[in-house]
Amino acid sequence: MTADASDGFLVVKLGGGADIDATPLLAELAALEQPWVLVHGGNEELSELQRRLGQEPRFVTSPSGHQSRVTDAATIAAIQMSYRGRINNDLVLRLQRLGCNAIGLSGIDGGLWRATRKEAIRIVEEGRKVLLRDDHTGTIHTVNADLLRLLTAAGYRCVVTLPALADSGEALNVDGDRAAAAVAAALGAEELVILSNVPGLLRDVDDPASLIATIPRDRLADFEPLAKGRFRKKLLGVREALDGGVRRVVLADARAEHPLEAARSGRGTVIQ
Amino acid sequence: MTADASDGFLVVKLGGGADIDATPLLAELAALEQPWVLVHGGNEELSELQRRLGQEPRFVTSPSGHQSRVTDAATIAAIQMSYRGRINNDLVLRLQRLGCNAIGLSGIDGGLWRATRKEAIRIVEEGRKVLLRDDHTGTIHTVNADLLRLLTAAGYRCVVTLPALADSGEALNVDGDRAAAAVAAALGAEELVILSNVPGLLRDVDDPASLIATIPRDRLADFEPLAKGRFRKKLLGVREALDGGVRRVVLADARAEHPLEAARSGRGTVIQ
Repeated sequence: MTADASDGFLVVKLGGGADIDATPLLAELAALEQPWVLVHGGNEELSELQRRLGQEPRFVTSPSGHQSRVTDAATIAAIQMSYRGRINNDLVLRLQRLGCNAIGLSGIDGGLWRATRKEAIRIVEEGRKVLLRDDHTGTIHTVNADLLRLLTAAGYRCVVTLPALADSGEALNVDGDRAAAAVAAALGAEELVILSNVPGLLRDVDDPASLIATIPRDRLADFEPLAKGRFRKKLLGVREALDGGVRRVVLADARAEHPLEAARSGRGTVIQ
Repeated sequence: MTADASDGFLVVKLGGGADIDATPLLAELAALEQPWVLVHGGNEELSELQRRLGQEPRFVTSPSGHQSRVTDAATIAAIQMSYRGRINNDLVLRLQRLGCNAIGLSGIDGGLWRATRKEAIRIVEEGRKVLLRDDHTGTIHTVNADLLRLLTAAGYRCVVTLPALADSGEALNVDGDRAAAAVAAALGAEELVILSNVPGLLRDVDDPASLIATIPRDRLADFEPLAKGRFRKKLLGVREALDGGVRRVVLADARAEHPLEAARSGRGTVIQ
């Protein structure tokens, strides 16, 4: 925790899958000298909270086959409660217990994630292409890296999550992997590690042994057709991070015994 | 927003009563040159969320007649969701919309509110005094004023809420008025304004015209018997703020058209 913020940052994205336990990652982060920023998801807890509140989570499919969550005003409130309230505060608490002076931020705090709201989303409904309007989703265009540097240089470690801040003033749902990529690019991070409940990019999604170990950055496009479902957004995040100047991105398994060490030593899919 | 953090701080506590609309206060704060910290409650929204989650809020009465919320682990989770998640994030969002670069913090973030957990609470149940154990409540002993100064000096304005961080590592419920007093004392604030859904300290709780306009600080003890219910904690907060070096405390009505201006011009109960 003594490194100063002029050192290269490590940015870690932790997915919000049901079978992910943050404990081993938090222990690794708390012991790390290098400055880091943790970006976290919370999809599973959000859906669970929505069900407890009597709001059945709704998902739609894009013409390209990507599934995404319908985000109405009630969903934004549930995102504030689950991601910003419960999950973020709990991760910060657990890091504090480990002796790490963590601080939680949403994309709204200090204008950390400024985003453009999507006017409409193209979806496929009963086989027909339609436009979904009034969705509270968007894309980050600017990260307040100064705020992350200020806090990190003062010895704090930032734990960051949804929602983002629209230019038009609303709270927005944004993709977590792309948000982590935007943070990594804005900080000029050395490395972005994206941890989820899959071991990396697989040639055959049902066969963990088909893991693709390395992708040269100039061949990323060749591998994009292999990405299914939510992995498409991950590869989009990878591309955005690399285009933003991040040297190395690793897609790896959050469920490993030492997920960060495993990812950084190359267990997963390394793109550089 | 151009004042630097060497100016005297104003600390404002906004209560969480059902009939309080934060809009006029937020407009006043966003326009203020003097550096400020806003501490907010959320009792009513917390109770509402608990009911939606099927957790009936429970309150107990102390031998001295003070009502307090029973805070089990599920209540802490609901506090994280409502105070830290929904209410805090929404206040920050609304300030951002007003052009104020607000940032939300809980007492856990950066160890802002370090607290001692109460081992047991004396309560009265069916006329008998009993001890309530395993309650997640406590008392703040240290405020990380450096974090508030760091952010304020960089142009941010801090919006602060529950939970606090126990020395033993848990998230704790603490009294909001006393928390605001602790913040004001730690910052050496010039003034603490405590806004709630009452006009100030009343001689007769049912008669707003019986408002006590001023209390000299050395006569505070004479007025303490007038305080009923939650107002006892407010007066305890007043005492702690004054003992901590705050020059002036005002108890005033959050429901005024310009609540901050009204309070600072003396409409309410002024203790100095």
